[in-house]
Amino acid sequence: LIIKLKNGTRKDIIETLVEKYTGSVVHQNGQEMVITPSSFRKLDNEFTAHVDDLIVTDNDIQLSGKSYFDGKREIKVGELVFGGHTNKTVVIAGPCSVESEEQIFKTARFLKGLGINIMRAGAFKPRTSPYSFQGLGTKGLELLGKVRDTLGLKIITEAKDASHIDEVIEFADIIQIGAKAMYDHALLTACSKARKPVLLKRGFGSTIQEFVQAAEFILLGGNDQVILCERGIRTFENKTRFTLDLTGVAYLKHHTNLPIVVDPSHAMGYSYGVPDLSKAAMAMGVDGLLLEVHPTPKTALSDAKQQLDFDTFEQLYADLQPIANAVNVQIS
Amino acid sequence: LIIKLKNGTRKDIIETLVEKYTGSVVHQNGQEMVITPSSFRKLDNEFTAHVDDLIVTDNDIQLSGKSYFDGKREIKVGELVFGGHTNKTVVIAGPCSVESEEQIFKTARFLKGLGINIMRAGAFKPRTSPYSFQGLGTKGLELLGKVRDTLGLKIITEAKDASHIDEVIEFADIIQIGAKAMYDHALLTACSKARKPVLLKRGFGSTIQEFVQAAEFILLGGNDQVILCERGIRTFENKTRFTLDLTGVAYLKHHTNLPIVVDPSHAMGYSYGVPDLSKAAMAMGVDGLLLEVHPTPKTALSDAKQQLDFDTFEQLYADLQPIANAVNVQIS
Amino acid sequence: LIIKLKNGTRKDIIETLVEKYTGSVVHQNGQEMVITPSSFRKLDNEFTAHVDDLIVTDNDIQLSGKSYFDGKREIKVGELVFGGHTNKTVVIAGPCSVESEEQIFKTARFLKGLGINIMRAGAFKPRTSPYSFQGLGTKGLELLGKVRDTLGLKIITEAKDASHIDEVIEFADIIQIGAKAMYDHALLTACSKARKPVLLKRGFGSTIQEFVQAAEFILLGGNDQVILCERGIRTFENKTRFTLDLTGVAYLKHHTNLPIVVDPSHAMGYSYGVPDLSKAAMAMGVDGLLLEVHPTPKTALSDAKQQLDFDTFEQLYADLQPIANAVNVQIS
Amino acid sequence: LIIKLKNGTRKDIIETLVEKYTGSVVHQNGQEMVITPSSFRKLDNEFTAHVDDLIVTDNDIQLSGKSYFDGKREIKVGELVFGGHTNKTVVIAGPCSVESEEQIFKTARFLKGLGINIMRAGAFKPRTSPYSFQGLGTKGLELLGKVRDTLGLKIITEAKDASHIDEVIEFADIIQIGAKAMYDHALLTACSKARKPVLLKRGFGSTIQEFVQAAEFILLGGNDQVILCERGIRTFENKTRFTLDLTGVAYLKHHTNLPIVVDPSHAMGYSYGVPDLSKAAMAMGVDGLLLEVHPTPKTALSDAKQQLDFDTFEQLYADLQPIANAVNVQIS
Repeated sequence: LIIKLKNGTRKDIIETLVEKYTGSVVHQNGQEMVITPSSFRKLDNEFTAHVDDLIVTDNDIQLSGKSYFDGKREIKVGELVFGGHTNKTVVIAGPCSVESEEQIFKTARFLKGLGINIMRAGAFKPRTSPYSFQGLGTKGLELLGKVRDTLGLKIITEAKDASHIDEVIEFADIIQIGAKAMYDHALLTACSKARKPVLLKRGFGSTIQEFVQAAEFILLGGNDQVILCERGIRTFENKTRFTLDLTGVAYLKHHTNLPIVVDPSHAMGYSYGVPDLSKAAMAMGVDGLLLEVHPTPKTALSDAKQQLDFDTFEQLYADLQPIANAVNVQIS
Repeated sequence: LIIKLKNGTRKDIIETLVEKYTGSVVHQNGQEMVITPSSFRKLDNEFTAHVDDLIVTDNDIQLSGKSYFDGKREIKVGELVFGGHTNKTVVIAGPCSVESEEQIFKTARFLKGLGINIMRAGAFKPRTSPYSFQGLGTKGLELLGKVRDTLGLKIITEAKDASHIDEVIEFADIIQIGAKAMYDHALLTACSKARKPVLLKRGFGSTIQEFVQAAEFILLGGNDQVILCERGIRTFENKTRFTLDLTGVAYLKHHTNLPIVVDPSHAMGYSYGVPDLSKAAMAMGVDGLLLEVHPTPKTALSDAKQQLDFDTFEQLYADLQPIANAVNVQIS
Repeated sequence: LIIKLKNGTRKDIIETLVEKYTGSVVHQNGQEMVITPSSFRKLDNEFTAHVDDLIVTDNDIQLSGKSYFDGKREIKVGELVFGGHTNKTVVIAGPCSVESEEQIFKTARFLKGLGINIMRAGAFKPRTSPYSFQGLGTKGLELLGKVRDTLGLKIITEAKDASHIDEVIEFADIIQIGAKAMYDHALLTACSKARKPVLLKRGFGSTIQEFVQAAEFILLGGNDQVILCERGIRTFENKTRFTLDLTGVAYLKHHTNLPIVVDPSHAMGYSYGVPDLSKAAMAMGVDGLLLEVHPTPKTALSDAKQQLDFDTFEQLYADLQPIANAVNVQIS
Repeated sequence: LIIKLKNGTRKDIIETLVEKYTGSVVHQNGQEMVITPSSFRKLDNEFTAHVDDLIVTDNDIQLSGKSYFDGKREIKVGELVFGGHTNKTVVIAGPCSVESEEQIFKTARFLKGLGINIMRAGAFKPRTSPYSFQGLGTKGLELLGKVRDTLGLKIITEAKDASHIDEVIEFADIIQIGAKAMYDHALLTACSKARKPVLLKRGFGSTIQEFVQAAEFILLGGNDQVILCERGIRTFENKTRFTLDLTGVAYLKHHTNLPIVVDPSHAMGYSYGVPDLSKAAMAMGVDGLLLEVHPTPKTALSDAKQQLDFDTFEQLYADLQPIANAVNVQIS
């Protein structure tokens, strides 16, 4: 149940609702609400007088669902907009990891030259092997801050766990929650209190239901700026690194009110397939693309096989334009 | 090994090769070849004199691989062309099953009116439950034959097993091997002897390697007109019927020489997502789309949820055109 | 609905039922029944007078379900018994393929010496690559027939498709439908008319629902002697060949009335894990084990890595005995 | 590479090794080692004089692999022992969540009465929905501490993220890292510094390779007491909650040196299948079983369907004994 309360509902009434229906209180756009587990299907008559609107939901996709808001949330990052009525697709690009000042500035200048406004790059890398490059950490964040200050690019970067979330919040314009951290309550909670947008990646072993429920943690905690990111799921197929779930993206577009970004680079795992998958996502009119690009992919310290070189990226970026036009979307 | 033999190589030499390397003899475009398991990495010197060209392959993707033919095979169905250098995307549409003369002719006329040249519809339905509608069988094939004769539409229809393959070959312009029959050797063998193109659907539990190897059965048996069809694989996600594997399609485009058709209807399982996925596949420049459309989807005897109604289909068909233009493809 | 009809119900009444409820007629143990799709939840009053018993089923697991028969079917193969009240576990063993008279007789004598009564071996091999060994075919069947005649072992062997089913029926005591043929209607239909037990392997990409529905095809067609065989499903894990689904076996034991055999060899794909998994299945009290054993696994023409050598098999067979005792099961 | 250094190797030499091979220093049982990524296959000659032993590993399963230690690590929790040469299977049981003092003491007394020495129960619950019961938190830990002090049972409880790890370390005898936290570096790092054993659950979407690599994070960080726990993976099958990967357990037993615990409750998701799967795991001779039991499963605040009631558990516990005897294992 999503219980939208009348203005000025008494505190003790709210507390009774919370207690009786194991609910949570949320304020959004001046509206006070109590959200209960979806297992509750109706409200006792005694509360009717205090209720402005009552939404019954089928499952725990509540604040993110179309029955709560039958449209798409608009999320602003300075002048960039994800979702809303804008028909925009934001292209986010950058290397897998920050590796050095030279590497990150070279990439940033290249992207800026193309007219791209926001860069991705990881400072804290959640590698599955302890013997792999783990990222530059704080030093990486500082380099990203320098890019932001110098070139004016927006920055999206990943918090891999709660231990360094404050630093990431400081340096990022959008906080990225990586696929491996999708269930991390400490991280979800910290992000729900942050005053910055969050890009939440789907866990590669996570159902869509769980994915959206992770977004609900953030929404319920008080941050209504959540962007979903599909980046491939793990299947029996191993010729490709993961399987990009565009059927799932079609589901999300139809059933949720959150903007959706697609990351073809991690799904494919090989640069040769990234342009085709980027075009596919663009033709679906998604709200953003997240692409890996590196000055010299072969020498990259992580994800060497899947990052595009500058020439390929530039060609792809040009090729996306006519598709954007074809589906009435503006690349930004 | 793909051993391309010199013209006029003696029969006993060929037999020795076949025996020694457990090979198979294939004639294609006037070229005689012996194909061996890919575990053989080289040929004894004694045979060198008889060999025109020798191709070493990494795995059992041989006749379908880029190392055998570094391009895309062209498959003609009357004036329709799949693959080759044509940059064409063939839109194939029609109902899941032939249900009645009225239903199939209504659909056929609608498609013809839009300029579509080839219709799909099943007469033998490989249902997983014995309690579901199993198709009209021979009567269904005859109705399809009538559509072909009357309206001039090409027909693609499915052989669900070897017991009725001869009938299907007679009535179909393209023989469809369904996902559930992908490993059926009797069917693959029968198709390898047929003089008609074969559209081979990927089993929903089959790896890409196995999928292409099933195509190799047909190619090796003597039929070089094979079209691959991706139609969704089975994953842990169950909000959608299957997961359309476009990462896999990117792999197939890069590594094989066979035309590729995408079927978003079966992958999604719900009509609402089909237009978006069709656009995605179109933007990848695939060689064909296979779409389900029905005069009254709600009353359909099979796949009721996923078939498009005429209005939605017409809108989609119109929407595909600008995307085709954007990627320099011609819809046919 | 499972409609058990009163003795002597008029033919026209039965025909009306079949027509009205798209039902099928089945005779079993002297009982005439009409089985309808499970979507029907009740019967019109006009038929009540003809009905002995009416079973409403939740899904298309009908003749194989506990609501139809709340026990386990007993299937006899000469003196061997699968299921029923016998608390027996039948150990079936043998090589992947019949390779030669020497190989098959050597194995058969070894098994007979241990007290094993039934041998497995494939003559028609449904390989995924056309470049792999495809089995000896008819010659292989004849060798199996010779083993049966000479040594008195029962034989289970696979029909890979409908084209050679008659031959297999002739030579086999139990007809095996392989994982890749689980959806093959021509094969299922042929088996439903055969007067021999059928061991139906689960497709590695098939849900339990589909698996049991495939059994329903055979049961509904008139053959009530079906044994289910779990042999591993395809998952994202690739350190092992497949993932043995013992959670699924627990489900099948609880919800169906069919005997269940477990095949750890194909699931694991490596001989080292087969003994442990055999013990696991034995401890669950399954009705049979299907194991691959070969005189010289390294030189086997198929499945070389997973077949046990004689010494390992003998040790395993001895180790199974105390576990059988522990769970009150008799190995036979 | 695992480079075992000679006693008293100079600090600057070690630093050179670390730098040159991006290695990490580990001390274990008085042995100083530098561990490098497995991509390094040999060591420069200049270092030979300082090396006691050099182990080349195939992949990043290093400290946990058989090439490092060809046996099974022994992990002591007071008088309880996991692994080693003991042939013991530790039965760990308890409710999903601590719900109240009455519930947890009732369960604890029941288990103690059966002779069980260690109890599981969650205080911090990593639920996928924000609308589900999230556990009693610190209060739950305190109740577990009271059970430990009063009844002398060992306690295993879960840290769901790094924000409360210190509390969990204080109250737990074994720290559990849950399936959803398997990639959480903050948690893995905190556990690698703890002086208590860690039970690491496999992520349900994680490969075995990643699972063992997560263990490597803890081992490399300095805590050599890691127990692996298989608890089911996510597959396409949805009749059961997850698919218990006993093929994977067979792999782990063969390739790693870590004790292995099996959790059939979470895999199955339904209590009816838990006894059979427990027996299966016992017959494989695993080092421990992790079972959910609750005084009144139907009213449980989490995992209601899968918890055993006392009677069923008692019966199962009795049934495990003869299987343990059959495989020469002692239940403790």
